[in-house]
Amino acid sequence: MMNIAVAQSGGPTCAINASLVGVFAESLKEPQIDAIFGSVNGIEGIITNHLLDLKTLIKTNEDMELLRQTPSTVLGSCRYKLPDWRDDEEVYKKIVNTLKQRQIGAFFYIGGNDSMDTVNKLSEYFAEQSIDIKVIGIPKTIDNDLCVTDHTPGFGSAAKYVAATMHEIIRDSSVYSIPSVTIVEIMGRHAGWLTASSAVLHALGETAPHLVYVPERKFSLDSFMSDVRHEMAKHKAVIVAVSEGTEVPDGVQSGVVDNFGHKYLSGIGKYLEEEVRGQIGCKVRSIELNVMQRCSSHLGSKTDIDEAEAIGAAGVRCALSGKTGKVMIFRRVNEMPYSIVIEDADASLIANKEKFLPDKFIVPAGNNITDAAVDYFMPLIQGELDIHYENGLPRHFTIQESVLK
Amino acid sequence: MMNIAVAQSGGPTCAINASLVGVFAESLKEPQIDAIFGSVNGIEGIITNHLLDLKTLIKTNEDMELLRQTPSTVLGSCRYKLPDWRDDEEVYKKIVNTLKQRQIGAFFYIGGNDSMDTVNKLSEYFAEQSIDIKVIGIPKTIDNDLCVTDHTPGFGSAAKYVAATMHEIIRDSSVYSIPSVTIVEIMGRHAGWLTASSAVLHALGETAPHLVYVPERKFSLDSFMSDVRHEMAKHKAVIVAVSEGTEVPDGVQSGVVDNFGHKYLSGIGKYLEEEVRGQIGCKVRSIELNVMQRCSSHLGSKTDIDEAEAIGAAGVRCALSGKTGKVMIFRRVNEMPYSIVIEDADASLIANKEKFLPDKFIVPAGNNITDAAVDYFMPLIQGELDIHYENGLPRHFTIQESVLK
Repeated sequence: MMNIAVAQSGGPTCAINASLVGVFAESLKEPQIDAIFGSVNGIEGIITNHLLDLKTLIKTNEDMELLRQTPSTVLGSCRYKLPDWRDDEEVYKKIVNTLKQRQIGAFFYIGGNDSMDTVNKLSEYFAEQSIDIKVIGIPKTIDNDLCVTDHTPGFGSAAKYVAATMHEIIRDSSVYSIPSVTIVEIMGRHAGWLTASSAVLHALGETAPHLVYVPERKFSLDSFMSDVRHEMAKHKAVIVAVSEGTEVPDGVQSGVVDNFGHKYLSGIGKYLEEEVRGQIGCKVRSIELNVMQRCSSHLGSKTDIDEAEAIGAAGVRCALSGKTGKVMIFRRVNEMPYSIVIEDADASLIANKEKFLPDKFIVPAGNNITDAAVDYFMPLIQGELDIHYENGLPRHFTIQESVLK
Repeated sequence: MMNIAVAQSGGPTCAINASLVGVFAESLKEPQIDAIFGSVNGIEGIITNHLLDLKTLIKTNEDMELLRQTPSTVLGSCRYKLPDWRDDEEVYKKIVNTLKQRQIGAFFYIGGNDSMDTVNKLSEYFAEQSIDIKVIGIPKTIDNDLCVTDHTPGFGSAAKYVAATMHEIIRDSSVYSIPSVTIVEIMGRHAGWLTASSAVLHALGETAPHLVYVPERKFSLDSFMSDVRHEMAKHKAVIVAVSEGTEVPDGVQSGVVDNFGHKYLSGIGKYLEEEVRGQIGCKVRSIELNVMQRCSSHLGSKTDIDEAEAIGAAGVRCALSGKTGKVMIFRRVNEMPYSIVIEDADASLIANKEKFLPDKFIVPAGNNITDAAVDYFMPLIQGELDIHYENGLPRHFTIQESVLK
């Protein structure tokens, strides 16, 4: 018999709690697993020994259904970067203390490429110290920028929200008889996956988004203005999708830096809006989809949520098979009909690395997305959850603030 | 036998096409109505004789169901302000020409208080000229600021989106262990109805939004900062809702003016974000819900959409009963259970007027919303449409761009 611990890390998505359900429900089924601990605020809860007994909190099937439709991280999150243990072993000793004291035999970390760095470092340290605690990473990120895996849990729901909202913005932008330009700024620091996913609307017969700019291509303001004028000659309401991380001149994006050295970006939409207003003078609006693209679980992709749960469960089976230092991944085994299998990969192949849009997904001019990309995105946004409502609003599963403190 | 015409005007909502369905379906049932014309781009289509035969475009029940879930205005919109006919009769003559040439006996104008000004002026002109064409206004606006009516079609869906999104933003904002402030900027130039509606979350047990600022109360930056500090002492993640039109010092809001003298506002969220960052120095983010709050029909309120269709149908019956210069309105006849009746009121009572939040809906300190307001809002956001999906995205009913040209 052993206990396990699970934690959630990094930026919120709609699928992180579904992966928690996967880990939890699979662990319930395994006779060799006793207590299931949830670590509060990611790895921070392991360091400070702030663990919750999840069996006392998640009690019914309805609780699990509500978790599947609750965005963000029910256990809290963190952006804690583990030092190299050779430089600073102190925090590793605290982690080992907690895990040993709680008789934890396996630790599951749901997170992005930074969290997979934690999985990698912890498993290396445990190997070095001959400590038999399995460490398994469960991927998540709306950015879809993890290597090795076909796609990441959380991306499909974000892509579904972005595409559905872009669809509605097209309707909203097309009502007046005067020419207009609408610029939609979409998340993505270095990779344009989420921005590119808005182009699935082309498969529904929409000509918009007419222009799509991603960080994988060098941005030129002159080419942009020329592209916009060209589209305005064809369409009354021109719709542009642009990644927040598409590089524009210095000073436009803010430059505040987080613990991982990431820049908090904002402002390219507003910048382009001002340029269009100044150079063309037409009606122009910029829209930042902001955090809604990562937390709008009321429009979650059933495919994404189901897969997020399944990959959490697979992580438990992986640990019980004796593996450690692994990240669970999706491999697409068939395009049409879409089919995936869940496998594991070494965390070192995924930690701190980023995956970019392949060239074949971007048109040669660098200002739109190809049909091949649309084929890739389409299966990921399929299906809707049967959302539980109360008083006209989707219900959420939450843990009291006082318990999380 | 007579023909009728219907047009859509003003800013988009999720319910304008449902009201079009109401006018269309009711007219189909009336034996004395022959052709049903849709005017392209509001009253502009009447002026330029750009009318579409709706029976050739809306052919099936499914078309009507899709229209009910399609945001914005399928016939296009306008922000055309009719001059006083005593100053400039030219445009009135064009309108009469079109209506007479098309043998139109009744004209239905779906719009906000500006459009009700058009209804009022047209019906007065026709009375003056002894022209027997009925003019009936069908209200719509997400702002809920029309006088006489209990509420406006389009508001319930916007309120449902705002509350559901605020709910998700609360989850998204509460994940980290550090204190934070999140400021959500919500539409509303002069009236705080939509911003206030976010407080329905209190009835779900949420403490957030912790602070709500509406244009009906004078805003003081000092009081705001004091309010924020006070809430930060109680909550790790403080959530603030603020109307775009809440007045802050000159220069913050842009000041570009439209045809009706409205200011296009933006920026109060960003402004308060910068003030909190500067004065408190904590993690802070501002989020503008932007056009999504008026076009997110994937989360439409069934109550709103059903009522919007019903008030369109009632407008047809009103015209056939011989009335003109009227705007259809809702009267709430019972609070619990919620019950409304549809009546008509003189357009002159509604045109160009605004309705503000009553004092009893705002707490004495002016920084939050009362339970009485929550009771008023709650019935309006109830129920969900059975959305038709295609390829993972809500389907829209559209008319080809070439037909609308």
